[in-house]
Amino acid sequence: MSAALALASRGRARTAPNPNVGCVIVKQGRVIGRGWTQAGGRPHAEAMALAEAGTESRGATCYVTLEPCAHRSIRGPACSDLLVAAGVGRVVGAIEDPDPRTAGAGFVRLRAAGIAVTTGVEAAAARRSMAGFLTRRALGRPHVTLKLATSLDGAIAMASGESRWITGPEARAHVHLERSRHDAILVGRGTVGADAPVLDVRLPGLEARSPMRVMLSATAVSDDWHVIPTPAAIATLPATDHLFVEGGAQTAAAFLAADLVDRLLLYRAPILIGAGKPALGDIGLAALADAHGRWRLVDARALGRDRVEVYERTPCLPASSPI
Amino acid sequence: MSAALALASRGRARTAPNPNVGCVIVKQGRVIGRGWTQAGGRPHAEAMALAEAGTESRGATCYVTLEPCAHRSIRGPACSDLLVAAGVGRVVGAIEDPDPRTAGAGFVRLRAAGIAVTTGVEAAAARRSMAGFLTRRALGRPHVTLKLATSLDGAIAMASGESRWITGPEARAHVHLERSRHDAILVGRGTVGADAPVLDVRLPGLEARSPMRVMLSATAVSDDWHVIPTPAAIATLPATDHLFVEGGAQTAAAFLAADLVDRLLLYRAPILIGAGKPALGDIGLAALADAHGRWRLVDARALGRDRVEVYERTPCLPASSPI
Repeated sequence: MSAALALASRGRARTAPNPNVGCVIVKQGRVIGRGWTQAGGRPHAEAMALAEAGTESRGATCYVTLEPCAHRSIRGPACSDLLVAAGVGRVVGAIEDPDPRTAGAGFVRLRAAGIAVTTGVEAAAARRSMAGFLTRRALGRPHVTLKLATSLDGAIAMASGESRWITGPEARAHVHLERSRHDAILVGRGTVGADAPVLDVRLPGLEARSPMRVMLSATAVSDDWHVIPTPAAIATLPATDHLFVEGGAQTAAAFLAADLVDRLLLYRAPILIGAGKPALGDIGLAALADAHGRWRLVDARALGRDRVEVYERTPCLPASSPI
Repeated sequence: MSAALALASRGRARTAPNPNVGCVIVKQGRVIGRGWTQAGGRPHAEAMALAEAGTESRGATCYVTLEPCAHRSIRGPACSDLLVAAGVGRVVGAIEDPDPRTAGAGFVRLRAAGIAVTTGVEAAAARRSMAGFLTRRALGRPHVTLKLATSLDGAIAMASGESRWITGPEARAHVHLERSRHDAILVGRGTVGADAPVLDVRLPGLEARSPMRVMLSATAVSDDWHVIPTPAAIATLPATDHLFVEGGAQTAAAFLAADLVDRLLLYRAPILIGAGKPALGDIGLAALADAHGRWRLVDARALGRDRVEVYERTPCLPASSPI
């Protein structure tokens, strides 16, 4: 399943509104087929893996990060039907497809055909892998990651505005990698005016993965930017299941105040600035007690001299979805 | 040597102006004597360990965190003489004593008596253990630890001033343990006025280890507090080799601006406050580039839902002292 999840990540931010699924077919200890949802959503991961495996699929085990779909579409047959037709012996799935056209019916069809089905394997990792799709299904909006890059004392710039650079090249490269994993990047109008950010992906081989650029502004009109007036309007962004919010402090605060941040990426440099520009504006906190219990550290690692921490909103909606 | 360092920590913040030394005497794989500098500075660690070992010391190995002293005083004989008289076979030391009355003469005397001497064992840990004594010797002032307790966005309180509690009970207990390891605690006059902090050690068995209370104020007069007018005046604090600076933001900034912080203890709660009170006032930073390369992460651990990070000033004076 870990291999299937790794394949799934290849499609991330390229498959909306379809989920980015990964699939591995194994026979006698050997991988005979690999697939992942292709850009635009088709072919599906299972169809690609089955095509690679060919007639070897008979009796094989299929690992897939999302329940195989039960619904035919004009773009292709249902994956559960393909698996039955190929004669696979066993299917190991991570999570159930929340799409009401499948929602368990895929697993039912496999079992009805005599295929052994195991579900719930690496479910948490699969939910994280498809957070965009699951959040869209559950909440009708993209999954939102907020990025902050601060000094140890929580400043994102000096009082003078100087902010290049707080973090080092390794952390900045990591930001570019995160950008490539999102369908769209959003900044506030103030950041556009002050920094004129390009917001592209400057990593070898990933230049073509630069996301759509979105500006939060109640009044701005722009040819270069997709403009939305409020955080809630992210629900209207086209083909956007994963949104990356990059700043500045007022924009970050607006998303937090609206409780529209699912994941927090906190890059921290081992420096002190003192009396700098704070990372966040007013998030509408009424009492300190209300601040607790909202964020859970799920990952932390060194990036050169800096560190990145990943926090998830708790309880987070996708994690409470049915397996 | 690790056992000797553990014993050394028992004397920490109770031996100024003497160093807190630890000593273990081992014979045929068995510990026969243990000692650590007693409150007030005497007896010395070696004298205590030799007294416990008695005549068994002959031919034994003595592990000691600081070079045995070479100078007699009215309070007792030189430890190097004691070790020679006891007939120990080998001495393993961590670092040389910077006291000019010893400064290598202790090791010379041992070697002259035919004792095998090894030095530099666990030197970095020993320097950290005796940071107060070494900083006093090198810079004529106490070793200074600055404590900050912040939200993820670097706030030490809400804009309203509400700050109880940002961190949880485990982190607060850790602060009390750190207090017990310092001779004195310092806060600014603003903190005294706003919070009337007791600054005692509220840990079972350590209540008697509460440090001297110091207030930073150019004008205040107090019966309850030792008052100093500037950060530089810490050099005048009586019997203080380890100073713990607890706040608030202006006091912390004043110490940082004067480059008088050797160690930074950063307690972080997994909460966001937004537009809160920043951890630091102006530290006199002229350019962002000047902020880099000053702090090195040396420890990080979870404390309940919170985390503590320990940073050391780099280059730090004690670390560049001779071994």
